[in-house]
Amino acid sequence: MTAHAHQGTPDAAALAGGVDGPDALRPLLAAVLDSLAEGAVRRDGPLPAGGPAGVAAQVADSLAELGDQGDQGVKDALAHLTNLLARGSADPADPACAAHLHCPPLAVAVAADLAVSALNPSQDSWDQAPAATELERVLVRELAALVGYDPAQAAGVVTSGGTESNLMGLMLARDRELTRESGRPTELAGVPSHLTPRLFASAAAHFSVQRAAAVLGLGEAAVVSVPVDADLRMDPDALEQCLKHAVAEGEIPVAVVATAGTTDTGGIDPLPRIADLAAEYGAWLHVDAAYGGGALLSDRLAPLLDGLGRADSVSLDWHKLGWQPAPAGVFLVRRAETYAPLARRAVYLNPADDEEAGYPSLLGLSLRTTRRPDAFKILATLRTLGRSGLGRLVDACHDLARHAAATIEEHPALELHTAPVLTTVVFRYRPASADPAGADKINAALRRRLLHEGRAVVGRTELPGEGPGRVRLKLTLLNPHTTPAGVDALLHTVVAAGKAEEAEVPRFDQGLSDGSARTP
Amino acid sequence: MTAHAHQGTPDAAALAGGVDGPDALRPLLAAVLDSLAEGAVRRDGPLPAGGPAGVAAQVADSLAELGDQGDQGVKDALAHLTNLLARGSADPADPACAAHLHCPPLAVAVAADLAVSALNPSQDSWDQAPAATELERVLVRELAALVGYDPAQAAGVVTSGGTESNLMGLMLARDRELTRESGRPTELAGVPSHLTPRLFASAAAHFSVQRAAAVLGLGEAAVVSVPVDADLRMDPDALEQCLKHAVAEGEIPVAVVATAGTTDTGGIDPLPRIADLAAEYGAWLHVDAAYGGGALLSDRLAPLLDGLGRADSVSLDWHKLGWQPAPAGVFLVRRAETYAPLARRAVYLNPADDEEAGYPSLLGLSLRTTRRPDAFKILATLRTLGRSGLGRLVDACHDLARHAAATIEEHPALELHTAPVLTTVVFRYRPASADPAGADKINAALRRRLLHEGRAVVGRTELPGEGPGRVRLKLTLLNPHTTPAGVDALLHTVVAAGKAEEAEVPRFDQGLSDGSARTP
Repeated sequence: MTAHAHQGTPDAAALAGGVDGPDALRPLLAAVLDSLAEGAVRRDGPLPAGGPAGVAAQVADSLAELGDQGDQGVKDALAHLTNLLARGSADPADPACAAHLHCPPLAVAVAADLAVSALNPSQDSWDQAPAATELERVLVRELAALVGYDPAQAAGVVTSGGTESNLMGLMLARDRELTRESGRPTELAGVPSHLTPRLFASAAAHFSVQRAAAVLGLGEAAVVSVPVDADLRMDPDALEQCLKHAVAEGEIPVAVVATAGTTDTGGIDPLPRIADLAAEYGAWLHVDAAYGGGALLSDRLAPLLDGLGRADSVSLDWHKLGWQPAPAGVFLVRRAETYAPLARRAVYLNPADDEEAGYPSLLGLSLRTTRRPDAFKILATLRTLGRSGLGRLVDACHDLARHAAATIEEHPALELHTAPVLTTVVFRYRPASADPAGADKINAALRRRLLHEGRAVVGRTELPGEGPGRVRLKLTLLNPHTTPAGVDALLHTVVAAGKAEEAEVPRFDQGLSDGSARTP
Repeated sequence: MTAHAHQGTPDAAALAGGVDGPDALRPLLAAVLDSLAEGAVRRDGPLPAGGPAGVAAQVADSLAELGDQGDQGVKDALAHLTNLLARGSADPADPACAAHLHCPPLAVAVAADLAVSALNPSQDSWDQAPAATELERVLVRELAALVGYDPAQAAGVVTSGGTESNLMGLMLARDRELTRESGRPTELAGVPSHLTPRLFASAAAHFSVQRAAAVLGLGEAAVVSVPVDADLRMDPDALEQCLKHAVAEGEIPVAVVATAGTTDTGGIDPLPRIADLAAEYGAWLHVDAAYGGGALLSDRLAPLLDGLGRADSVSLDWHKLGWQPAPAGVFLVRRAETYAPLARRAVYLNPADDEEAGYPSLLGLSLRTTRRPDAFKILATLRTLGRSGLGRLVDACHDLARHAAATIEEHPALELHTAPVLTTVVFRYRPASADPAGADKINAALRRRLLHEGRAVVGRTELPGEGPGRVRLKLTLLNPHTTPAGVDALLHTVVAAGKAEEAEVPRFDQGLSDGSARTP
């Protein structure tokens, strides 16, 4: 089996690495690029029309056409599949795809990531990733400085995203606090049975906090939901009451999770006051800055995160306001020694005598074992655009959000929730006549209509304090190349879809009267 | 800010997606490919010479030369960094890089992954990944059939690797068993304080089992280490004794973890007998087939995994015997309803009325939120090479392992541990004269010598039952294009390094007499 079975025809078993890898990759990558362009043209919009059933049918037909294997050459088969993926994608590079924290990645980051795929380093031991190990250490030091930590004291690791980073922060908090209380290492002995641990997060915090509590064996019920103010930021007075109450009940305040950039409104909890309270009550302070961490890149927005450097641990996600292909999460701790419960020795990965001989190991920094160096694309982006270049992209998206808010405020059929903090805008379509439940159904339906027609990907959500089922729409503006006119066009598309849904009101009357209303 | 600031000069802020993305990517990818080839030539071997200090210095110098940002154009900067990464990699495509379950990825998989990076779908909601959602569902069904599940009953998800998959299996086990015992949902209420949960895994199981127990709040002490036979496979009689003892003590047998392909020896636990015992004691059966799952691709080796289909959950890793760039993990459960504790509803991702309207959601299948569709590269590989093509690669590596074992057995200075099961060979260098401790030091040192000289990446480990510090060497043969002569050359390199270390025996005598001996 040779790397090139036939001249010019790539062998399906050719490898990407080594001296010959680039030659094996060249024709395949050319096919992928052509198919990406062709697929985008054939899609002709932000997502495919036809909804889930249409896409499923297209996938089934296309796979059937391809055949099981080897019916076509590897290049043609790859082109076929790439075309299918591109045609069937919701592409965040399209200005009308603006629902989620789902960014259009930069070409430089995508190209850098190809080098990682081809070489396939793994960060679980130095001898699988010599340079990549060192590059991650460089990146972690730079990001530690960015969040306001002393890089000489801090530690961190690249993660699969905010959900993993939040889990890590809460695990370290659990193991520090419960070990302190019980005198037995939690990572060894389990959660002590005589303690009642509590985590405190705002009602607008990300659901991964509850998820982490469930994974960690604390149970979702361990999470105390702290009330928020009108801008959906944690109310620090309420936090103080919650902490006081917990301590009075004999519960252990394990951690406070502050959010710097809620998924929906971009709201940033008052970090300095929360840091004071966490310190007073001896709780670990974890800041989920998965979204808001991007503000650190912008001179204009960075002051919103004052106090971040006081956190015991921080989550950052450069696949949000950082324009990386997913994943590009980062977990940081202020003091490296707090990482101890995660330390891990595996005789085949980081034997003690190798470490004594100077071989570094990132194994004990991560919950994963095999780990792709996602640090490389992040570092390549920082070294080409720099903080200032990335900051300009953040500001461009922030400007677009403010523009969207102004357009919404001026439009009689739209209602703005609140002024944007970062790059999201929460709003809703206001039907000419409908009770609140009817308006909710129209908003939900207009969004599905846009999806089904392949015309726009707009977000939807429900806000704390509004009760379940109160549907809000949302734009998450992460494409710095979108123009204000593009945003206006998207909003007008939303209004048109709303009017189309209103024209079908009988359907909704029926929907309201039959038993098909959704459960909360 | 336009996609192309100057004709022919890529804008650092150009996007990878949309109709224009491929044109922005083309020159950057060309630069990456050229730098990968050049870096491999400059490295001139399986890894860079100089050890950690040398690589760290090279990284520091190279980054200093590059400057902070924008001193060079984006293409030159990317080329510079890629060259640094390639020169500083341990490349598994080199026949002398054979330490770990660290495979050389296929060009077709790497090229497919580029399409994913450029389009950046995320599997946490349908409207971020219409086609990718469907493609993952197709892949999961195919893999469920491959492990012997009924695809109509099974469920699963693509993961970041075996460590995450093992965590998921044990979390589902924990929440099923402890909820059943206590009557309160564990994911909500936490680990019940009056129960003593136990997990059973062999002494040769992967350390991620202990890791999972720590994460899940059960504590590492909850893992019962079941003795292994001479081939490092779980002794089922010993398992039965352990289970019996636990039940007699009033402990809860939450799960049995069987290993199908241990990291070191490729040993496969006796699955049918273990499945009987797990059923008898009401324990969840999780099979860690991260490595051995690749045997399912080979007609010759697949019978080793008979009984796999009886597992409640299975871990597979296609970045091991599947030649994918990391990560390409898969988690499967036999019965979809056992997935319930992971179900998750987020009003902004999978509102109930959207699901009623036919919008599928993979959110509740994963511990992650943002999730890159690693399914695409796996599916592209299956659709080009097919099971039979991949099976030939598995067999080629198995043949190489058997050849290596034969060479080791014939060589007077090498000692084979046991006949290879899959594609690893455990052995050691036998010094002409040295006590066991001296031999261990020589084996550890010869491996570091090879790393430091940039000549080979050979594995090392310690085996259960041999006591700490009894160093074994290991080849993990995952490059199907390596020749038998290449394997022999690698083994002769090992012998030469051993002889060179023996020639420095005074250093070892000193090492034995001073206080620098490593701690276990």
